[in-house]
Parts: sequence; C-alpha cells; structure tokens
Amino acid sequence: MNIAIIGYGYWGPNILRNFSEREDCTVKIVCDTREERLKVAKKSYPSINTSLKYQDALSDSDIDAVCVVTPVYMHFEIAKKALASGKHVLLEKPMTSTVAQAEELIKLAGRENKILMVDHTFLYTGAVREIKSIIDSGNIGSLQYFDSTRINLGLFQADINVLWDLAPHDLSILNFILKEKPVSVNATGISHTGNGLVNIAYLTLNYQSNFIAHLNCSWTSPVKIRQILIGGSEKVILYNDVEPSEKVKVYDTTYKIKSGTDESKHSLLVDYRVGDIYIPKLDKTEALAGITEDFVMSIKTGKKILGDMYAGLEVVRILEAAEKSLKNNGKEIKL
Amino acid sequence: MNIAIIGYGYWGPNILRNFSEREDCTVKIVCDTREERLKVAKKSYPSINTSLKYQDALSDSDIDAVCVVTPVYMHFEIAKKALASGKHVLLEKPMTSTVAQAEELIKLAGRENKILMVDHTFLYTGAVREIKSIIDSGNIGSLQYFDSTRINLGLFQADINVLWDLAPHDLSILNFILKEKPVSVNATGISHTGNGLVNIAYLTLNYQSNFIAHLNCSWTSPVKIRQILIGGSEKVILYNDVEPSEKVKVYDTTYKIKSGTDESKHSLLVDYRVGDIYIPKLDKTEALAGITEDFVMSIKTGKKILGDMYAGLEVVRILEAAEKSLKNNGKEIKL
Amino acid sequence: MNIAIIGYGYWGPNILRNFSEREDCTVKIVCDTREERLKVAKKSYPSINTSLKYQDALSDSDIDAVCVVTPVYMHFEIAKKALASGKHVLLEKPMTSTVAQAEELIKLAGRENKILMVDHTFLYTGAVREIKSIIDSGNIGSLQYFDSTRINLGLFQADINVLWDLAPHDLSILNFILKEKPVSVNATGISHTGNGLVNIAYLTLNYQSNFIAHLNCSWTSPVKIRQILIGGSEKVILYNDVEPSEKVKVYDTTYKIKSGTDESKHSLLVDYRVGDIYIPKLDKTEALAGITEDFVMSIKTGKKILGDMYAGLEVVRILEAAEKSLKNNGKEIKL
Amino acid sequence: MNIAIIGYGYWGPNILRNFSEREDCTVKIVCDTREERLKVAKKSYPSINTSLKYQDALSDSDIDAVCVVTPVYMHFEIAKKALASGKHVLLEKPMTSTVAQAEELIKLAGRENKILMVDHTFLYTGAVREIKSIIDSGNIGSLQYFDSTRINLGLFQADINVLWDLAPHDLSILNFILKEKPVSVNATGISHTGNGLVNIAYLTLNYQSNFIAHLNCSWTSPVKIRQILIGGSEKVILYNDVEPSEKVKVYDTTYKIKSGTDESKHSLLVDYRVGDIYIPKLDKTEALAGITEDFVMSIKTGKKILGDMYAGLEVVRILEAAEKSLKNNGKEIKL
Repeated sequence: MNIAIIGYGYWGPNILRNFSEREDCTVKIVCDTREERLKVAKKSYPSINTSLKYQDALSDSDIDAVCVVTPVYMHFEIAKKALASGKHVLLEKPMTSTVAQAEELIKLAGRENKILMVDHTFLYTGAVREIKSIIDSGNIGSLQYFDSTRINLGLFQADINVLWDLAPHDLSILNFILKEKPVSVNATGISHTGNGLVNIAYLTLNYQSNFIAHLNCSWTSPVKIRQILIGGSEKVILYNDVEPSEKVKVYDTTYKIKSGTDESKHSLLVDYRVGDIYIPKLDKTEALAGITEDFVMSIKTGKKILGDMYAGLEVVRILEAAEKSLKNNGKEIKL
Repeated sequence: MNIAIIGYGYWGPNILRNFSEREDCTVKIVCDTREERLKVAKKSYPSINTSLKYQDALSDSDIDAVCVVTPVYMHFEIAKKALASGKHVLLEKPMTSTVAQAEELIKLAGRENKILMVDHTFLYTGAVREIKSIIDSGNIGSLQYFDSTRINLGLFQADINVLWDLAPHDLSILNFILKEKPVSVNATGISHTGNGLVNIAYLTLNYQSNFIAHLNCSWTSPVKIRQILIGGSEKVILYNDVEPSEKVKVYDTTYKIKSGTDESKHSLLVDYRVGDIYIPKLDKTEALAGITEDFVMSIKTGKKILGDMYAGLEVVRILEAAEKSLKNNGKEIKL
Repeated sequence: MNIAIIGYGYWGPNILRNFSEREDCTVKIVCDTREERLKVAKKSYPSINTSLKYQDALSDSDIDAVCVVTPVYMHFEIAKKALASGKHVLLEKPMTSTVAQAEELIKLAGRENKILMVDHTFLYTGAVREIKSIIDSGNIGSLQYFDSTRINLGLFQADINVLWDLAPHDLSILNFILKEKPVSVNATGISHTGNGLVNIAYLTLNYQSNFIAHLNCSWTSPVKIRQILIGGSEKVILYNDVEPSEKVKVYDTTYKIKSGTDESKHSLLVDYRVGDIYIPKLDKTEALAGITEDFVMSIKTGKKILGDMYAGLEVVRILEAAEKSLKNNGKEIKL
Repeated sequence: MNIAIIGYGYWGPNILRNFSEREDCTVKIVCDTREERLKVAKKSYPSINTSLKYQDALSDSDIDAVCVVTPVYMHFEIAKKALASGKHVLLEKPMTSTVAQAEELIKLAGRENKILMVDHTFLYTGAVREIKSIIDSGNIGSLQYFDSTRINLGLFQADINVLWDLAPHDLSILNFILKEKPVSVNATGISHTGNGLVNIAYLTLNYQSNFIAHLNCSWTSPVKIRQILIGGSEKVILYNDVEPSEKVKVYDTTYKIKSGTDESKHSLLVDYRVGDIYIPKLDKTEALAGITEDFVMSIKTGKKILGDMYAGLEVVRILEAAEKSLKNNGKEIKL
C-alpha cells in the first residue's frame, strides 16, 4: 500500500516513522509548504519523494491512502479532494473545524466507498485500553464522573483555541468508555493572546444519567499535568499520563449514602470505605502503531476501527457546542 | 479574656487548644448538643465547664468572646444572639448561609461595637502569606489566572453543598491576593447524594480585567489534591498544600505573544521562556495561632484583622451567586 | 497500674499521652533533670507529679512500671535500679550502650521476675505488620535483600553515633521478618562533628543464606528519606514511610536466571517479568498504642511481646559489632 | 572524518545516530558478530556498510576513528589493534577490564599519537555540568559527602558485575567534580545469579579529607532510582535523574556544630538552618552530542576532552580495587 503524508510539522514525523516500519506500506511522498520541513523528512528517509504542493500526492494514482497532518483549518479541503481522488484518508484530530464539514466528509467517504479515519491516538494506548476493560468488567460500578486536567506550557495554535487542541483526547476517551452521549455543555475560558482564541478553558459535559464530565485545558501552565479521574460507584480510576510507569491506579475507595437526610435535613449518614489500590501492568506498544494497523487493516479487510469517523464527528459536535457556550458566557448549549 | 466555644465537632478541639495555649485567654465553657463531645472536651481540659445549651455561654456575663464552630445553618442565630449579648464573635467559615444574614450581622456588630471575625484559616498560613508577598512584590507580573483543585474523599455535609464547604478557602485567598472583585460567576456540578446538594462542583469567576479564576471542588475523590496555580505574566506560582515541605514553587516560566496573528490569521508568534524554579522557605507557625492572635488583639487594641467580616461577606456573596448559577444550568450570574 | 516516666525530651510526651489515654493506667510521676521540661509536662497534665530526681520514682512503692526515655547512656543504670526496686521497665531503643549491659538487665529481669521491654515502635505500625504478613504468606518467595535508606536533617546526638540512633528501626524490623540472624557486619562512615561520632554511616549485614541487608543512615540530608526495599524471588516490597497514605507497594516484578552462563562465560539468559503493583490498605492505629498495650498486657497476663528484650539485645549486638567495624576501616566483624 | 562503529547492541544505535547527525563525519561501517543487528543498522541507514568482522574496519585505511561499543571484555583487544592500525578510538565505559589494560592502551595512544577517549556520557549532561559549576562557584562550601543510589531492574551482564556496569557513571562524576582522589575503598555485595558476579553492591570510597562517597548499585529493584546527594558545608545538591524536568535541586539547608561536646561528653550544640530550595534550568542538549563533539574536535584541533583516557583509567582503578574488596569480605583496599 502506498501512502502520502500531507503536513510534516510536529506530528508528521511520527506518522511517517510508523508507516515506514510496516512491511505492507511504503510512504511514497511527503508534502509540506515549508521547504525546510521537507529537507528534514528527506534526511531521515532519503528514498521518499517530497513536494511543496499536496496536489502532487492526490494526482498520483499509485497513492492508495493519504494522511492529513496539517493545521485543522486545512483538513476539510484536503480530505475532500483526497476522497474525491479515490484515496483513503487518515485525518489528524480534531477531524474538521465544523460539524457540517465532518458530516460532508462522512457522506463523501460513503459515496466513494473509502475509509475515513481520525487519529484519536489515545484510544490505542495501553492505559486507555486497560481503563476500558476495567469499566467493561463492571467492577467499577456505575460511572459517576470524569474529571480531566490537561495543562502545560503548550504550543499556542493560531487557528484553533485550546479546547480544539487538547479536549479531543478527553472527548474521544469519553465516547469510547461511555455508553451514553452528553446532552449539553457549558464552557468558560479566557484569552490572553490578543486574537480572541481562549488559551485556558473549562468545559462541563452534562448527561441524561447521573454522570458529569469536566475538562480543564490550558496552554499556560509551567507544570505539565495529564490527569483523569474516572469515578464509579464501587471504585475510582486515576489515569496519570505523565507517570512513566504507573499510569493507571484503581482505588477500591468509595462512599455509600445510607439515608438521604433525616427529617430535620441536617444529617446525612455516609459509609466511607477506604481500601486497597491496584496498579495494573500496561501494554507499552506505541499507540500510533495501533492507528496505522487499524487504518491499513480496515482498508484491506474491513476491520472495525476503534475510533472511527463517527467518533470523530461526535468530538467536533461537542467542540462546536463548547465554542458557542464560550461565546455566550458559559450558557448551557444543548447537543 | 474569657472565651466560650459553641460547637465541638471536627474543628472545635483545634480552636480550644489554640485559645488555651494563650496566656491572655481562658476558655471558660464549651457547648455542644452532644453529651459525648462534651466528655471529650472535659477529658482533655478537666477544668473547663461544659453545657448542652449554648445559651449558657451567652448569659454568662464573664464571657467576653464567643467562637461559633457549629454547622453553617446555625451560625446566624447564634452569632446574632451573641452580639446582642455583648460578646465579640469568631465565626467558622463560611460566615453565614446567605448574604442577607451576613449583612445583618455586620450591621449588628457595628451597632454593638463588637468584633465580628470569620475564621479564614488559610490567610494565616506561611504558604499564603508568602504567596501574597510574592504577588505584592510585583515580580510575578500582572495576574492572569487562578486555578484550584480541592478534592478528596470528604465529609459529606448535610446542610451545605461542596462549594460552601471547600470553596471558602480559595475565595478568601482570592480576595486576599487580588485587588479586584469578580463581576460574575458560572457554576456547574452534580449531586450523587439524593438530597440535591452537589458533591462535585466547578466554579468559574469572571473579572473585569483579563483574569479568570476556576475552582474544582469534590468530596468524592480517593486522591487528595489541594493544588492552586496562580499565573502571572512573568512568573507562575504553584501552591501544593499536600506537599509536606515544598508547598510553594515559583516558576520563572512564561510566554510572550509577539504578534497577535498575521494577516492570514494562521500564525501566531510566541516566545516561550522556561527558567529556574524557586521554592521559598515558609513560616511553619500554625495558622490558627494567627487567627486567635488577630481576634484577641483586635478586641484589645483594634488591630486590623487579615480576613475581616467584610471579607467573610464577599465569600458568602460569591457562594450565593454560585448556587444560583448551579440551579440555572451554569448560567452566568452577575455579582 | 501506676506508671513513672523518666526522661521528658522529644519522645517522652508521646509515651505520656499514650499511657494517659489508657483506662487501666495512671501516669503518677514524670522525672527529668531539666525544670523547664517538667513545666511542659505539668501544663498538659496538671495532676501529674514531677521530680528532678528519677530516684523519687523508684522509691515510690505505688509505682508498678517505669518508662526510661532518657539518652541511651543512662538506660542501663536507671533500668538496673528500677528492676532492683521491683518495677517493670519499658526502655527506649536502643536498649543499652553495650551487649554486656543488655545481658545483665535480661538476667536481672529474669531473677526479679519483671517485664523488661524495648520500645521498637516500628514493629507495631500497620505498615510493618502488613509487610510481615505478606512475607509470612510466602507469596514474596525466598528473601534476597533488604535495602534501607534512612536519612534526613536529624538531631545530632551527643552520646551515640547515627547508627545507634537510626539503625535500631531497621534492625528490629529485620529481626522481626527474617527467620535467620546475620553472621557478620561491615560498616563504614564519617564524622563531621568533631567528636568522632559518625553522622553518616553505611552498614552491611551478611547472612548464612543468600540474603544481604544494607542500611544507609545519615543525619545530614536536607531531604527526608525513609525507604526500604525488601526483595523476594517472586515479588518485591517497597516501604516508603514518608508517603502519607501509600506506604507499602508490592511489585509483582522479578527476574529468573535461566542458565548460569554458557561455556564462553559471556552470556547469561535472564527472564524478566514486569507485572502489576498492589498497594494494600494499612491499619492506621498509632504504633505506640500497640507498645503500651503489649507492655501492660504482658505485665497483667503474660501476653507475648512483639519485640521483646531478646530482640532488643540482638539490635545492640549488631550495633556493637558495627561500631567495631567502623573503628577497623570497614573490616568484617563476626557476630 | 570517517567513522567505524564496532558493536551494535543497546548503545550502538545512539552512537551511530549522533555521528550521523554531524556534518563533518560519515559513519562508513558498522560491525557486529550478530547478523540480525547489522540488519537493524542497515534498515535505518541503508548507505552504511556492515560486517561480521571488526577487522574489516581496522584494515580500511579510509577509516579515521573507531568507536568500540562491545561488551567490556573485548575493549582491550579491539582498542589495541585499532590504535596499532592508526585509528583514533572512542571506548564505551568502563574503559577496560583491568588497570593494566588501561595503562597499556594509554601508553599505546601516546606512542601512536592518537586520541583515546572513554564515553563517560554523564559528564556531558546539562545536570552534571550545572552541578560542576555550582560546586566550582564555591557556594556549596566544602564538600562533605556524595551518596548515590543507582538501582533498577537492570540488564544482567554476563562478563561484569553490577559495579562495573553502573558505578562508572558515579565514579566519573566524582572524578569530575572533586579535586582529590580516593585513598581506599570498601565494597560489599551479593550474587543471586549463580555465576558469582554480584548483582547488588555497596561501595564506599574513603578520602584523605573529611569527605566520603558511597554507591548503592543494583540490577534487581523494580523501582528505578537514579539519585545522588552531594553535601557541602553550606548547601546540598540533590540530583534526581529520573525526574523529567527538575533534575537538580539545591538546598540551602545545613547545620553547624557550635561546640564539639562539653566536658561531660553528653551534649552537642548544633545550629540547624533550613532555607530555600533552588531548581536551576538545565541545558537539554543530548549528552552524546557533547561526546562526539569532544572526540571529533580533539582529533581535529587538540581540544581538551572533559573525561579523557586518564579519567577512564581512574574509574577502572577504583573498580578493580572494589572487586578486590568484594572478594575479601569488604576489607579496605588502598588505592
């Protein structure tokens, strides 16, 4: 299978390396508008072609699949042309800048009978797959909350705000582990950049059931925190992604409300249980290797993809609503 | 000076011990509606009187000052009667259940010419005083954000939600270190208790200037986190209160936006600076000793109190607005 | 039972509090040569007698038991007189300054038919009891090593070196969890104090079996480390005593040597297994409450003590040998 | 400059990458006795020649310099032949298996007028260079101790024990930061491997001055610790190499002995000072890039090397003495 990579910035080299390591794939061409980035690609992989124009990849009938690793605002145009040129498409997250664009691409992929996949890398990590299996086992009880802090001194993006940059990780995980979708969102935040794009944002997702999700995203923290708490009625999972080896901890610690309140409304009987902690061993396979495997195998054999184009759409739908809430002073926006 | 302590639950023993250690104070009586709590007080301090009725403390003309360490819903009634009986009053945080109550107590204290103080303990810690002095020095630059996570497996309260329980710490610190007051709030949250009181809540405080504050409060985390990031344009302070000895870290790490965006709106020039970190030595004096000192000295000499009754009122004002926002699906509530 | 406490320095108040909290004990008298320390005791417990002369405690026939909480060099003389006066004796660790002294006290206790106990507090912690039960369960496999780091900015002692001060904790734990005794020791160290007493010391304990123990003790580290690794052939225990709540971690991680070496002596086949980690919940009862319980119950009912006088003697025996090794440039000293 | 790399195991690829990234160097050939390792090299760098016989590199007159990245027992033979063939030589650490071998190579390098360098990588890290500059500034006061813990689940070596594998890092750092050399060593340890090579070892280095160094090395810990404390009379440095970004901490915390002891020998006046902590920003350049720069520039221009062949010899001298002490039950071995 011949692959083209369009966009060779921060993430492109990882995509290139992972496809190159596969026996069944050849990366034929890397495209980027910056000459110096093409030189970098060429230095590592001298046999690869490069071009300043992504159209060169689309017009090459040898190319089977295209990876779009550009800024978000270019995703739609390139993916649309690629699908129309009969290529399978792997899109960086987030899928597109709007729900309408994502829906149009999905329709087009269906019409052209091509694979359209979004690179929600986290779904392929050992940590998230372990979390998914713990939740599916039922031992954690009914889910009560998801609380994520994803902050560091980040690379300020010029075309998207911090939610579009960081929240897709959490939103794709949420969609992956939960059986229900959020019914509404509230978002607050602030911009210190002068371009109106918030660099600190707080997003609450409300659900039909008694579950809540909250995301704290920032590009302006000198401390890097990548921490998610997933609370169940029986156990709580702590997922700390900056821990080198003990990323997932399962706490057998919870509470039970024994009575709502007495008649005087001034007492509440609660049973607290503090128990053991369990740190499961995680598979350390690189997540991107799972992405390339799913992409290639879904093209070859129709294998089901973990985070498919519909999952990509759901993420964009929430981000669009969050942006609307941000512009309306945190007002609840129905989904 | 003769002191009465009304309420001898979780915090009462600390108040008792701190007043007992002062040469210039005698705790004459401890009141609580639970016989077994009075026994506990008596065992440690055999010479202290106890009573099941707090009125015994108010009617004793030898008592100069009363500490109200009861659940919040009783603060107003007891404090009002105490002031009316000519006693100075130290109230546990939060001051009262409503803004109206706090305002009435302030008026009454003025009329009776008595000291009315709220126990905002954190203002007296070495950590917060160091943070205040760093900010006042100007080295941190202009303040940009305050981001607090205050979660653990907490004691569920029956008369107040998690914000009324935990947020007063952050709100009193915010009032202490900032020159401006918030103009509005948004709050979201969820109740898993069956009594409608949220046990997880997220509160955003909006300001006139380009500053934002956010609080993440929960009684349902098996991990105890007490962490505040205070971001300035030049430096960022990390205050981690569960660290035994390195609670305050000052990061000389920031960014500068060199240009908003170029004409194409797709680039942003940012200068990142990652520098040294500094961990100042902190005064380890117990915070409550500062509270009792300020309370006693303000009675004796009129010494200015760090967090006075007006500060207590501000905290209640924000909590009342937050509760309104919670009930209105996160809607922005003006202050 | 009437108790006398001789010595009221750093540890004395804890002993006093723990005996005072027992229904079946009354602390009648506290003795110390420093007037100001007696005042401190009197302030907290006004009903207790105090004296500058410990002989007052020994000559009082109402006193059943004496706790010796003085510097080590006074242990022998006071304990000897106390036993001779018909009192039961609880000695602070280490038991005595020499093996000869410990042996004489043990003989005397036998002759007088009195309880002689050493306060090896750590044996009564939830952490050490959990470790003991893990090892006894056999799941850890055969023990291979014990590696302790016990360093901080400590209180320099004037009569004993850092090993006599800090190593008793590790040595009593070792005696408690191991079925065998060391056959020899090597110790190295250095003194920066001008009095020849080492303030940094390294102690290796050699055993008949394929087990080794090593202690790193220092009074001169600004960082406080209290960490013990106990390696088994199947699992490894990490005991980190400065962790507030996750003190004991059990790693299901080991290696197996599949073949010694091949004929060329240049290869070694090793199977590495990295598995889950388990953090057991620990009993949080104060360790000293276990000490006082064992002391009192052994007097009353003959209950077996966890760390008895023979355990105390073993610790002194190792310390004496370690000191000899220190003075002989780390030479192996047989036990 | 044309480079040959002999040995392509764990470390070889890093050497290859670093020389390849230099404009002034070409890696012409990689040699290894294992066909599959040569394939790995070829896959990443298709233009490089490979050979199963290192003699092919030595006999190629185009080759200017040889990097020996083999097991230690082969260092001497290969390096000797390489020098004799007129090549400059970069040796992996430790330099050789014996002092005699190291001395012979040094003589040979002198005679042949070739550069002979040892890859003591740590000297080129931002952390160690910062530590060196702090010590050289004099602010840390007179050095008192060096205490290193270097343990993890390591790759058991078949030809050398754990000290020869791990201690060279600490020993080269010690030689780098200290003005004096150790006068003797004591080493203890244990072998669980069946081949007599210790996998846990403790090494004390004794000095003429009032300084001590101690190394705790193990291949059998499930926890990875890379921590060095360097104590001075004024400040203490903590170097924690597993910390991702805060590797070096400088503690302004010390003690001063005010009087040795009083006449009764039972008191010691000590002034403790607990101060601020400072975490300097470190240069993040890859250490190996410094190695290749020094190697190449010393060949080209005679630039002085940080850790030269004499430094390599000193490390071997200590290791040889340590091994002798290990075999003599920890006996002090003079250097």
